[in-house]
Amino acid sequence: MKSTILYGPKDVRSEDRVEPSILQPTDAVIKIAAACVCGSDLWPYRGIGNNTFPTPMGHEYCGTVVAVGSAVKTIKPGQFVIGSFFASDNTCAHCHAGYQTSCEHKEFVGGAQAQFLRVPLADGTLVPTPGVPSNDLLPDLLATSDVLGTGWFAAVAADVKPGMTVAVVGDGAVGLLGVLSAKQMGAGKIIAMSRHRTRQDLALKFGATHIVSERGEKGVAQIKSLTNGVGADAVLECVGTQESMMQAIQATRPGGGVGYVGVPHGVELNGEKLFFTHVRLHGGPAPVRRFLPDLIDLVWRKKINPGKVFDLSLPLSDVAEGYRAMDERRAIKAFLQP
Amino acid sequence: MKSTILYGPKDVRSEDRVEPSILQPTDAVIKIAAACVCGSDLWPYRGIGNNTFPTPMGHEYCGTVVAVGSAVKTIKPGQFVIGSFFASDNTCAHCHAGYQTSCEHKEFVGGAQAQFLRVPLADGTLVPTPGVPSNDLLPDLLATSDVLGTGWFAAVAADVKPGMTVAVVGDGAVGLLGVLSAKQMGAGKIIAMSRHRTRQDLALKFGATHIVSERGEKGVAQIKSLTNGVGADAVLECVGTQESMMQAIQATRPGGGVGYVGVPHGVELNGEKLFFTHVRLHGGPAPVRRFLPDLIDLVWRKKINPGKVFDLSLPLSDVAEGYRAMDERRAIKAFLQP
Repeated sequence: MKSTILYGPKDVRSEDRVEPSILQPTDAVIKIAAACVCGSDLWPYRGIGNNTFPTPMGHEYCGTVVAVGSAVKTIKPGQFVIGSFFASDNTCAHCHAGYQTSCEHKEFVGGAQAQFLRVPLADGTLVPTPGVPSNDLLPDLLATSDVLGTGWFAAVAADVKPGMTVAVVGDGAVGLLGVLSAKQMGAGKIIAMSRHRTRQDLALKFGATHIVSERGEKGVAQIKSLTNGVGADAVLECVGTQESMMQAIQATRPGGGVGYVGVPHGVELNGEKLFFTHVRLHGGPAPVRRFLPDLIDLVWRKKINPGKVFDLSLPLSDVAEGYRAMDERRAIKAFLQP
Repeated sequence: MKSTILYGPKDVRSEDRVEPSILQPTDAVIKIAAACVCGSDLWPYRGIGNNTFPTPMGHEYCGTVVAVGSAVKTIKPGQFVIGSFFASDNTCAHCHAGYQTSCEHKEFVGGAQAQFLRVPLADGTLVPTPGVPSNDLLPDLLATSDVLGTGWFAAVAADVKPGMTVAVVGDGAVGLLGVLSAKQMGAGKIIAMSRHRTRQDLALKFGATHIVSERGEKGVAQIKSLTNGVGADAVLECVGTQESMMQAIQATRPGGGVGYVGVPHGVELNGEKLFFTHVRLHGGPAPVRRFLPDLIDLVWRKKINPGKVFDLSLPLSDVAEGYRAMDERRAIKAFLQP
């Protein structure tokens, strides 16, 4: 089958690999209907962080179950399913608390930019859709697998409530879907921080009421001026750099919440400075599994259209162009079909 | 009047100073009925942090109003009042949100270990008691001024709810009153982390159900073993060192809250590590003004006895012994009367 392998910085290849099979009795194997490139895939693609090469890439997926292990009880071959980037048993205390990405038995699901994918802990991880979707629904459904669920968690973690003023740091696909999430949660004023026209336009479509194109201290000053000097009630940090984190913290009012979902790279927080901001900080790897049933339902009923973040559609074998386009910010997010 | 001045590390003196007077039309001057030494007074006493010497000391106070400025409307001479360490207007957006210690016009109230004290923004800062209290109620009332309000905020910031398992890091007066606060908020299991017998005993009196005397990784392992490996639902960080902060974060379950109220000294948080803990972090200088009316009411009706943290009572002129006793951990907290 076709699989996507990262051999080193800027060196991603589509190549033939052996199809995955059931290794554990709790596994399922799915035939991928659609996958995509994640903003977080760009960290290793750019050679940032600790990476092992070669690595099978991709962790966002939806498709049809083709095989299940002997211990799988609820997931059946033929079902169309969506899962997230961490497999979880969905039965431990952390799963019950809604933090499936801290599941006692969590396991990273890698290699989804491929024709087939093995998913561990299938019963806990996969959520079936109400039926087999039409092709035009695939982008919206695929988005629930990670990018929407992550933007949604940013809003939940920042404690967005109806009527609030919400600022979103980061105009990648997660940030843009953070805007959509805040809108769904009833935010009154939604300030998208972006200096790219196409992303600003999409933010406005998703419900942003204001655009701030400045960054850093100037960006913070703009947020303050849009909030009578008070700061935003909730800020979604969807990047993961020191600058974006400080921008988020400083744009938040005392007692307000920062929901941070961009995997921090080189971020250090000074305890004393954080203390005097009075900001509430919550985040981490988004427990998308908590939100999947509701998000699938919203998509199925066509209440939201998160798939609009895919502005580049490619056959799986052209995956390298997807990485290049996102790296060069020519595309927001690349959609891949085998 | 007698006033307490810190001249340098370990050099605190009681000396005669000019009585304060009304400087701003929003000021009040109060005759101190009782004051005390705060754990945070020990930082400059030990020469830690950026300090200016000589400095008038003390920021916890209660007493009788003797004069008010021309713009003071609700506070009257003769009233017995309690205030907190930051004066606040109680009318700005931050005050309305319950974060009076981030008030737009906040001003530190220093020099309370004295016979008289000038309090700025009197109407916003001071809360009158229902009447003039008897002497035996003074320790309990004085505790509401900071140490109880701060322990209370730690529990609020950690989002303590009925039935939760709560751990408290720090067995100073704030930590002990964090135990009392968690108990008042209905916590099911309260784990006090302390290795000092007298403090353990007081924690048990205040409602602790378990004592953990280990620190660091061993302490965290104990908390885990008391919670089926899950971690505490809420942890109150009442110290402010790197070790105590990491102990608090690591003892918290994913999705649980850390309320941190110990002013951080040299604390640095790695963003990536924090991210993967899934812990919710909230704290800062306790907005005691938010809680004062309710806490005074609880004390007035004798529902709580936070004054038990005062295990050393001294005349104001012996204040230096109060500092020494707390520095050497011979006393939990020193109560001072002019």
